[in-house]
Amino acid sequence: MSEKLVYRFGAGTADGGAEMRELLGGKGANLAEMCSLGLPVPPGFTITTAVCNAYFGSGDAYPRGLAAEIDGALAEIEHSVGAGFGDAKNPLLVSVRSGAPASMPGMMDTVLNLGLNDRTVEGLAARAGDRRFAFDSYRRFIQMYGSVVLGIEHHFFEDLLENHKLESGAVLDTEIDAGGWEALVGRYKALVAERLGEPFPQDEREQLWGAIGAVFESWMNRRAVTYRKLHDIPAHWGTAVNVQAMVFGNMGEDCATGVAFTRDPSSGENVFYGEYLPNAQGEDVVAGIRTPRHLTRAAREAAEADAPSMEETMPAAYGALCGIRGTLEAHYRDMQDIEFTVQSGTLWMLQTRAAKRTARAALRAACEMVDEGLIDRAQAVGRIDPLSIDQLLHPTLDPAAPRTRFVRGMPASPGAASGRAVFSADEAETRARAGEKVILVRTETSPEDIHGMHAALGILTSRGGSTSHAAVVARGMGRPCVVGASELAIDYRAQAMTARGVTVKAGQTITIDGSAGEVMLGAVATVEPELSGDFGRLMGWADAFRGLGIRANAETPADAETAIHFGAEGIGLSRTEHMFFDAERIVAVRRMIVAATEEDRRAALARLLPMQRDDFADLFRIMDGRPVTIRLLDPPLHEFLPRGEDEIAGVAAAAGVSAEAVRRRAHELAEVNPMLGHRGCRLGITYPEIYEMQARAIFEAAARVIVQDAKPVLPEVMIPLIATKAEFDLLKTLVDRVAREVAEAEDVELDYMTGCMIELPRAALRAGEIAGTAEFFSYGTNDLTQTVFGLSRDDSSGFIRAYDELGVLERDPFVSIDVDGVGELVRIATERGRATRPDIKLGICGEHGGDPDSVAFCHRIGLDYVSCSPYRVPIARLAAAQAAIAEGGKESG
Amino acid sequence: MSEKLVYRFGAGTADGGAEMRELLGGKGANLAEMCSLGLPVPPGFTITTAVCNAYFGSGDAYPRGLAAEIDGALAEIEHSVGAGFGDAKNPLLVSVRSGAPASMPGMMDTVLNLGLNDRTVEGLAARAGDRRFAFDSYRRFIQMYGSVVLGIEHHFFEDLLENHKLESGAVLDTEIDAGGWEALVGRYKALVAERLGEPFPQDEREQLWGAIGAVFESWMNRRAVTYRKLHDIPAHWGTAVNVQAMVFGNMGEDCATGVAFTRDPSSGENVFYGEYLPNAQGEDVVAGIRTPRHLTRAAREAAEADAPSMEETMPAAYGALCGIRGTLEAHYRDMQDIEFTVQSGTLWMLQTRAAKRTARAALRAACEMVDEGLIDRAQAVGRIDPLSIDQLLHPTLDPAAPRTRFVRGMPASPGAASGRAVFSADEAETRARAGEKVILVRTETSPEDIHGMHAALGILTSRGGSTSHAAVVARGMGRPCVVGASELAIDYRAQAMTARGVTVKAGQTITIDGSAGEVMLGAVATVEPELSGDFGRLMGWADAFRGLGIRANAETPADAETAIHFGAEGIGLSRTEHMFFDAERIVAVRRMIVAATEEDRRAALARLLPMQRDDFADLFRIMDGRPVTIRLLDPPLHEFLPRGEDEIAGVAAAAGVSAEAVRRRAHELAEVNPMLGHRGCRLGITYPEIYEMQARAIFEAAARVIVQDAKPVLPEVMIPLIATKAEFDLLKTLVDRVAREVAEAEDVELDYMTGCMIELPRAALRAGEIAGTAEFFSYGTNDLTQTVFGLSRDDSSGFIRAYDELGVLERDPFVSIDVDGVGELVRIATERGRATRPDIKLGICGEHGGDPDSVAFCHRIGLDYVSCSPYRVPIARLAAAQAAIAEGGKESG
Repeated sequence: MSEKLVYRFGAGTADGGAEMRELLGGKGANLAEMCSLGLPVPPGFTITTAVCNAYFGSGDAYPRGLAAEIDGALAEIEHSVGAGFGDAKNPLLVSVRSGAPASMPGMMDTVLNLGLNDRTVEGLAARAGDRRFAFDSYRRFIQMYGSVVLGIEHHFFEDLLENHKLESGAVLDTEIDAGGWEALVGRYKALVAERLGEPFPQDEREQLWGAIGAVFESWMNRRAVTYRKLHDIPAHWGTAVNVQAMVFGNMGEDCATGVAFTRDPSSGENVFYGEYLPNAQGEDVVAGIRTPRHLTRAAREAAEADAPSMEETMPAAYGALCGIRGTLEAHYRDMQDIEFTVQSGTLWMLQTRAAKRTARAALRAACEMVDEGLIDRAQAVGRIDPLSIDQLLHPTLDPAAPRTRFVRGMPASPGAASGRAVFSADEAETRARAGEKVILVRTETSPEDIHGMHAALGILTSRGGSTSHAAVVARGMGRPCVVGASELAIDYRAQAMTARGVTVKAGQTITIDGSAGEVMLGAVATVEPELSGDFGRLMGWADAFRGLGIRANAETPADAETAIHFGAEGIGLSRTEHMFFDAERIVAVRRMIVAATEEDRRAALARLLPMQRDDFADLFRIMDGRPVTIRLLDPPLHEFLPRGEDEIAGVAAAAGVSAEAVRRRAHELAEVNPMLGHRGCRLGITYPEIYEMQARAIFEAAARVIVQDAKPVLPEVMIPLIATKAEFDLLKTLVDRVAREVAEAEDVELDYMTGCMIELPRAALRAGEIAGTAEFFSYGTNDLTQTVFGLSRDDSSGFIRAYDELGVLERDPFVSIDVDGVGELVRIATERGRATRPDIKLGICGEHGGDPDSVAFCHRIGLDYVSCSPYRVPIARLAAAQAAIAEGGKESG
Repeated sequence: MSEKLVYRFGAGTADGGAEMRELLGGKGANLAEMCSLGLPVPPGFTITTAVCNAYFGSGDAYPRGLAAEIDGALAEIEHSVGAGFGDAKNPLLVSVRSGAPASMPGMMDTVLNLGLNDRTVEGLAARAGDRRFAFDSYRRFIQMYGSVVLGIEHHFFEDLLENHKLESGAVLDTEIDAGGWEALVGRYKALVAERLGEPFPQDEREQLWGAIGAVFESWMNRRAVTYRKLHDIPAHWGTAVNVQAMVFGNMGEDCATGVAFTRDPSSGENVFYGEYLPNAQGEDVVAGIRTPRHLTRAAREAAEADAPSMEETMPAAYGALCGIRGTLEAHYRDMQDIEFTVQSGTLWMLQTRAAKRTARAALRAACEMVDEGLIDRAQAVGRIDPLSIDQLLHPTLDPAAPRTRFVRGMPASPGAASGRAVFSADEAETRARAGEKVILVRTETSPEDIHGMHAALGILTSRGGSTSHAAVVARGMGRPCVVGASELAIDYRAQAMTARGVTVKAGQTITIDGSAGEVMLGAVATVEPELSGDFGRLMGWADAFRGLGIRANAETPADAETAIHFGAEGIGLSRTEHMFFDAERIVAVRRMIVAATEEDRRAALARLLPMQRDDFADLFRIMDGRPVTIRLLDPPLHEFLPRGEDEIAGVAAAAGVSAEAVRRRAHELAEVNPMLGHRGCRLGITYPEIYEMQARAIFEAAARVIVQDAKPVLPEVMIPLIATKAEFDLLKTLVDRVAREVAEAEDVELDYMTGCMIELPRAALRAGEIAGTAEFFSYGTNDLTQTVFGLSRDDSSGFIRAYDELGVLERDPFVSIDVDGVGELVRIATERGRATRPDIKLGICGEHGGDPDSVAFCHRIGLDYVSCSPYRVPIARLAAAQAAIAEGGKESG
């Protein structure tokens, strides 16, 4: 490697800058950027992500020249700080932190106070004039280094600390004096020697290289790999290592450490928001072990807290911080999440990065930043993670609903959720896989819990503040979260939690309100959110950018109304069979299925006709002239069959046949691979009377709405599971005939289209031919994914976990469209379909329609619309706008 | 239409010729050709297939100008024959016959004696001096015209004839005198008038146009549509209509009609072979109603028949026929099937066409024609229908096997078959669908029986000769057939047949030997055929032309030996799981499946290892250095699970677990869509120890054969169900590691390849990527067809019949590769695979590998080999040679 391996920063200058995120990681790039902005940053240097990749690429060896570059950079820090690395009199201490190009909170390990040893600790004590501080720092270093670099589990150190407290009668760390810490340092070193078989490293360079190696190694630990998978971060990005002169927030009462957001990350309000801990170091705030204090007086007063705010206790440092807040927002034009330390009254900036925020906060901040002239509308639209707005679209607690309050905590991530309490991440995942709704309850969460947090509908902790791990991660995931419910006594062994004499066991239902910070017993009714204000403004901007139409999948009037409420421009998929399961109808459906002759079948269908007609008429009225794509019967008939003996007897009685005949029919219809069986258009071809009834219901409903309601109606009749043009042509002929008959009988002009699903590879390949008669295509990428991969969703549980762990599938192809395989067939079909019929209408229906990356793909290949579940419509609108903006699209209208 | 609509022939000249088959149909083209050759052909004309297409294309209307052209051509016939159409004194009578570009025996209807009416019949009587002949001709005309053109079912006429015989005491037609026929004509006309509501048409031109229309309409009748579907004849080819002056084989004892083959169509021997009936007309020979006589004296003597041969009774006409036989073979350079009539001692040729023949006959004739210098080797290879040689490759009766003879008949199509006797085509089809082996038994067959003949393994009739419908069709289909077993009394109502006091009921097993003309009770043991002589010569020529390699799918030593016997150049698919079902092994397999831990699983696998190793060693030894492609475990584990309670208990005992645990495991493994489930490489990824065992068995077997037998071994390890390169790479790493370990442990050098099945659409699309590490691809077009069509073979029975009837699928995609869909993916994968790895080895395995059209497709896209079942290897060799010849390929070596 001939490039520069180490980038220095400090004292108003830096080798790097914010734009070098890929090479320096987010933290390193921003430290450099802050230096260039003239902010007070302890000097240091960043070892690049290229070194990380070289390290893994060469079997864990460092590139040549790295040591020399580090030595040079260290010398510069020594010079700047005026201390010497390993100098027994005036030791330079450094922190070693990871910093990847994408924020991975809590994923990577950190070592503070590196450079301390039996000699330099004395120098530190002398220079600080505080022997207690020095040995506290030393024991912290041994503990961190021991667990992170040497692999000795954290709890061994904690046990020694707890023993020491018991022996000495101390309760809080602050009650331990210098001698106590010194004694503990001795025990820590003995622990290390015992478990490692060699003494704790005393050489500061050996310490440094150990820490650098540990940071790199942690890039490949299980937590990091899991996080990357969850957030689609490629492994080859690598992490940088930041080595920086230590500053101390724990050198006395004029010291502090804190975390702040330039705006409220929960509401987005333009207020300074944060927490600090006096006389504390590094990770104490985010670790959630001590409850931190408010940054501002206003926040303290609002919370009716006693502990004074930083604004009150350290007005000068606070004033400097407020100035920096303004500088950072003006510079980055985005909400920042900052870490700082006050050492002996002097403010030092340790980190700045784009703040994680709730969707509500993101919307408000984006809108207000447009108003403030900080960003333009395209930037505002681009600022919102489409998936995040999901949290705004789901129900919140109905204010009028009765509830039994259990405990209070701090509101850490908005929204409400009910679910069964579970006390471990693994159980959360297991139950969620089984289809249960769960709330994960922990004293505090750690990166090991991420899979459980992901599986849970909500998170509750008894410790920690609003910047604790649980709070930060929950907001990122859009899960409601209540933290610091300190009244809760959680007993993992008993799988229960108790507060105020009430015990909730694992499996009992609770409800959390992440906006209010409340926990209720049982389930509590919810209400739909209001979609106005910032949401409405921003979605309006998004709509002006996007080119892709957005429709919803809806069958019921309620779904259709929700769809319109969320801005759907039509219905892209109405699954007629969903209407078949209604209690009254299922009997007629089953009579139709068990019918022995076409005549009997027609009689049963005649009973269904008026019901389907009413369904469609309702949809047409609600959609008021917007296109409505109706898919004719798709699932195999056996899906509608009665299961138990009671149901069988009922159907037999209704159909006037024997129970044995019903069972025989069920046996006849059973399939080995129903996914590839007698379904879709194959039903329409073998039982044309079924499709005929459905077509008649559609056109009679259309005629009715046109005549009675004087509303236009645009039905799009969609044939599922087409593999050949011959199938489509047969059924289009049937549909056209029925349309003609209805138009003549009702004396109306019917405007409609007939098209098909493209959900089989063959249909995609033969799209050019099929487009000869099909007026539209709707890509059924769910089924297409199943056939392209040869992968039944229902049966993948046996191996999908192994696939995930082995990284066989980069992303779940059922969540985000497999661009390389499924996507290529969609692209082929689009090209071929358009070549035959340039104005063919092309859309996608199914779950991918609500996935932002899939929406972007649909935009890129030029589809006309995507259709998704009503609740996903705003996500799709936003994703479509971002895709257009990414291609340089301008606002319309 | 401005082209010529009517082509004339006769008197040594013709407008058309043999090369105009598409326009004139086979019969018309050959009639024209025979005229040009100067053969005695009654004059006539052919209405082109273009007229047929115009007729159907314009809603059953004739093109303008047709009537004028027909009038002109008729006038020419009148002039040539010296008679007038409709002339009461000297009437011209014509035949009207269909004639499609492809031979469709018995499919199209024929009308003879057209032009007869109440006036002209008297003229005919006077001119022929035979009133009986004239009225017999008239009643035949009314009967044929009535059923074919007017749609009055045949049996109405037969009933009147039978009644007349009863009334008059006549037994044979020949016993009816002129008055009798005249009376019957009256009754026939009354029948027509009654059923039709109008009199039988007396106008000869109305008769002619009616017959022409009926020929065209019959192109679309169900029999014709079925036949075309069975033989892949496109509907748009259309049929021509041949109108030709009548000659009479029934004007007296110096008249005859007959059918002959220029060589023996059963053995291929270069002898004149045929039958004739004196004083008979048209269809009497092929209809099988009267048993015809031998053409030659030699044949008569060989059959020990009494009735004199044509050679003996009509030496002059016979001599002329022998001359024509020579002329035709020299001209067409192929075996001909001819129809002739002798009218008052004069020979007339009515038809010549390429003769249908058995595969044995085709081989012998082709070889002998090469020896005779008539054709070259490429033509000889091209002459053999690859599918037809299937009949040579299957067992014949073991001469030593005990048997109980039931009856004798005539040998009509060679080969032997055992199956349950069935008495209707529908039942044959139904039972065959249910997997039963059936023999179709009929008094005689007709085109309505074709679907049943296709479904049956053999055909037995009590009437008819070796050119009867049953015999001709059975030979074409390659089914063993015995005809004319006249002792048999077949009672359709009782569903039974009786001979010599023995009754065989439907469902009882019989055996027929189509080479000997014998029928046995029960099943009789069979032996493999000898594959030498003509077969060996012709296959040798084929091998010299083909470029495509041919391998076999084989697991057992017996299969592998058969494969080599049939000329396989390697094994293209060895399904390791087929070895798992052996009684001894299945227990170990099941223990492996129910194992709770990897350790238990490894223990069970360790017991399987030596068995699989022995299997592979056997294969390697037999294949003696030829490549052997071994597919690692593919089917889902539940396929191996015990079914009944006894088996469950057995497995539980063997594995040392409870029956409940076995049932639970079975429940866990159950799948909704096993075709798309946990199988193929997904098993290898989740249970790497299984593939590891199999890889170890392969390489240890290879090492053993290399060391102990000093034979080279070329294993090709094949990973099934690959969807992504990541899957393949994971498993290739495992295979390579095991190979390395075995090579080191056994100290041998192992030469092997690792590749994968391409059987999922995604793998085909990503072939370029996968070829980065895969050294070969084998297209699994069975599964690819299932995923490309979204069609489970197991579940298609519910709709595939309707699809067939509606013509939705032109061909069954599981029989012949769907070139447009599945084929395109194979083409894409081939291009992409080769782009990455130019020398990648490409093959196909599965049933398409033995289908000639699919083999031709594989040749065209440049695959290296096809692999099929051992019995299909010769078919594939021949098909590959024909594909190469079609592209102008030359002989090698």
